[in-house]
Amino acid sequence: MFKSTIEAIGALDQKAMEAAQARLDSLIKPPGSLGVLEELAVQLAGITGNPQPVINKKAVIIMAGDHGVVAEGISVAPQEITWQMLPTFLSGVAGIGVLARHAGARVVVVDVGVAVPVETPGVLRRKVRSGTGNIAEGPAMTRDEAIAAIEAGIEVARSEIEGGANLLATGDMGIGNTTPSSAILAACGGYSAQAVAGRGTLVNDEVLGRKIAVIGRALAVNQPDPGDGLDILAKVGGLEIAGLCGVILGAAASRVPVLLDGFITTAAALVAWKLQPKSKEFMIASHLSGEQGHRMMLELLGLTPMVHMKMRLGEGTGAVLAMHMVEAATKIVREMRSFAETGMTNLEEDKILK
Amino acid sequence: MFKSTIEAIGALDQKAMEAAQARLDSLIKPPGSLGVLEELAVQLAGITGNPQPVINKKAVIIMAGDHGVVAEGISVAPQEITWQMLPTFLSGVAGIGVLARHAGARVVVVDVGVAVPVETPGVLRRKVRSGTGNIAEGPAMTRDEAIAAIEAGIEVARSEIEGGANLLATGDMGIGNTTPSSAILAACGGYSAQAVAGRGTLVNDEVLGRKIAVIGRALAVNQPDPGDGLDILAKVGGLEIAGLCGVILGAAASRVPVLLDGFITTAAALVAWKLQPKSKEFMIASHLSGEQGHRMMLELLGLTPMVHMKMRLGEGTGAVLAMHMVEAATKIVREMRSFAETGMTNLEEDKILK
Repeated sequence: MFKSTIEAIGALDQKAMEAAQARLDSLIKPPGSLGVLEELAVQLAGITGNPQPVINKKAVIIMAGDHGVVAEGISVAPQEITWQMLPTFLSGVAGIGVLARHAGARVVVVDVGVAVPVETPGVLRRKVRSGTGNIAEGPAMTRDEAIAAIEAGIEVARSEIEGGANLLATGDMGIGNTTPSSAILAACGGYSAQAVAGRGTLVNDEVLGRKIAVIGRALAVNQPDPGDGLDILAKVGGLEIAGLCGVILGAAASRVPVLLDGFITTAAALVAWKLQPKSKEFMIASHLSGEQGHRMMLELLGLTPMVHMKMRLGEGTGAVLAMHMVEAATKIVREMRSFAETGMTNLEEDKILK
Repeated sequence: MFKSTIEAIGALDQKAMEAAQARLDSLIKPPGSLGVLEELAVQLAGITGNPQPVINKKAVIIMAGDHGVVAEGISVAPQEITWQMLPTFLSGVAGIGVLARHAGARVVVVDVGVAVPVETPGVLRRKVRSGTGNIAEGPAMTRDEAIAAIEAGIEVARSEIEGGANLLATGDMGIGNTTPSSAILAACGGYSAQAVAGRGTLVNDEVLGRKIAVIGRALAVNQPDPGDGLDILAKVGGLEIAGLCGVILGAAASRVPVLLDGFITTAAALVAWKLQPKSKEFMIASHLSGEQGHRMMLELLGLTPMVHMKMRLGEGTGAVLAMHMVEAATKIVREMRSFAETGMTNLEEDKILK
């Protein structure tokens, strides 16, 4: 399924994009004056093949996993926070619960690699293994485990899409996961450990120093192959990151737009892009995280974030906040009227001063 | 009314802000990890005096006016577009109509200075004069006219607030209005005409050169006093800019948050700030416009925009898009639960690695 999904990812529909662009240029506004809203409308047309795309069912898929590397003391928060958060996601009292409700999005929570057994009703049980190995000492997981976690993500995405979802967002939960995400960025972009490491959650100077050293060791010990996304993922990644990579690939294969969140989900996007460069066309960057390496990731992908609010919570919180903009883009192209339709002076035909 | 409104603008409620901050710090997330959403929640608490602020009725107030300076050929679009757009705002087929409906906001359209008689049903008739004088040759309006236009804005804002609105957004319509807005920026910040002039709508190099010369002449001919907001407004401003200044002052006096939109509404905010520095605390920056001088305006005010989408349509389109974030901020502080309430390990009390 992993291979067939990657092969199923195609190009954007140029005809639908041209039709959307022509419609946008006819509307009662100076051409291009709605900026990224217009670019989004064209991208959504290309993804869906519909020049007037519709979004009316949204879901955020949160992948949860633990990280052996927490043994190195790279996280301030204790590992038990990973499983403790899961019920709060579903009961709607965590950040993502509140913001997903505000966005009108369904919350899907998947245990793809939490260290302890998760019994929470409603959490999808797709555990591949109980946390990764310590990447400072060896690989996070085997190649087969990475594929299994990706396939869990593909399946969850497909299931949501079969249920009618036409906009997906990605979210993460995993104490310690800025460290493997930093290692993925370093491996994909050829950066040093120092360049990619940020403060994650509450990290002070001492912990940051330890984190940089650990990322450096992870890269030195594992020697991930920069040309092989699966190798990077298995050696220095995480189970939830693999699951999120699967969500992105699954969405792209089904021609459904997928919103990235912050540092962790964009690490997953880097891997998806390495595995299938065309997957990038189906991604939408939501916000620019307060985590410093996020900007570097988005630059590698050539994506531009819409929301600049220094958020760094994860869980998909930035992604669901940006759903509002994605929906707005579809409404612009569907609901605005043209100069001709309103009988107005056409700005394009009447450039009296040109 | 002008004077009493300015005098009625007070300081933010520190007690409510402290209570909101304490609540935010107790919630199940690392402190500060929701970034600007948390800052907004605290600001809204300070504005309203309620540590758990509520937003449930929103309105965007669009002020329309014309500009004598269009005689200088500084705009590509013909002046008649100003009045032609007004019915489309109310019928919901213009950019602001679509985006305000998406945001759940009421659209209020005010003729404060359109050049021709406006008969459109639903447009509020508050015309102070039929367009400004040509600022390249003399003042835009008299001081009394500026006050009358400000008072029109104050009254419309009050009327909306009396009707229950607890979040206002500002929008503009006025062909040629990037020129007076640039002149206001130059006068407030001590910048050259070259530094503040941007491309507005469809402006090519030739028109841009003319625009820079016109802004320079407007400043030289009128000599606006940088310390006197009313002088700047009357000499090089616009009627809709004055009306928007009134909306901002009226919102602040009634302790209701007010969202700025792009270049024109932020020019109005600069004047409001000159007239009453405390008014700034009631303003919320929404988006960063594609018009280059907007960043300079926001820096003068010390405000940070949330949405970066290269929009430059005006009408309040960026402001209503950001209403979603302002509402999200109120929901975070109202609907998220604390570590104690959910029985979780408290990140603050349990910094095992600090």
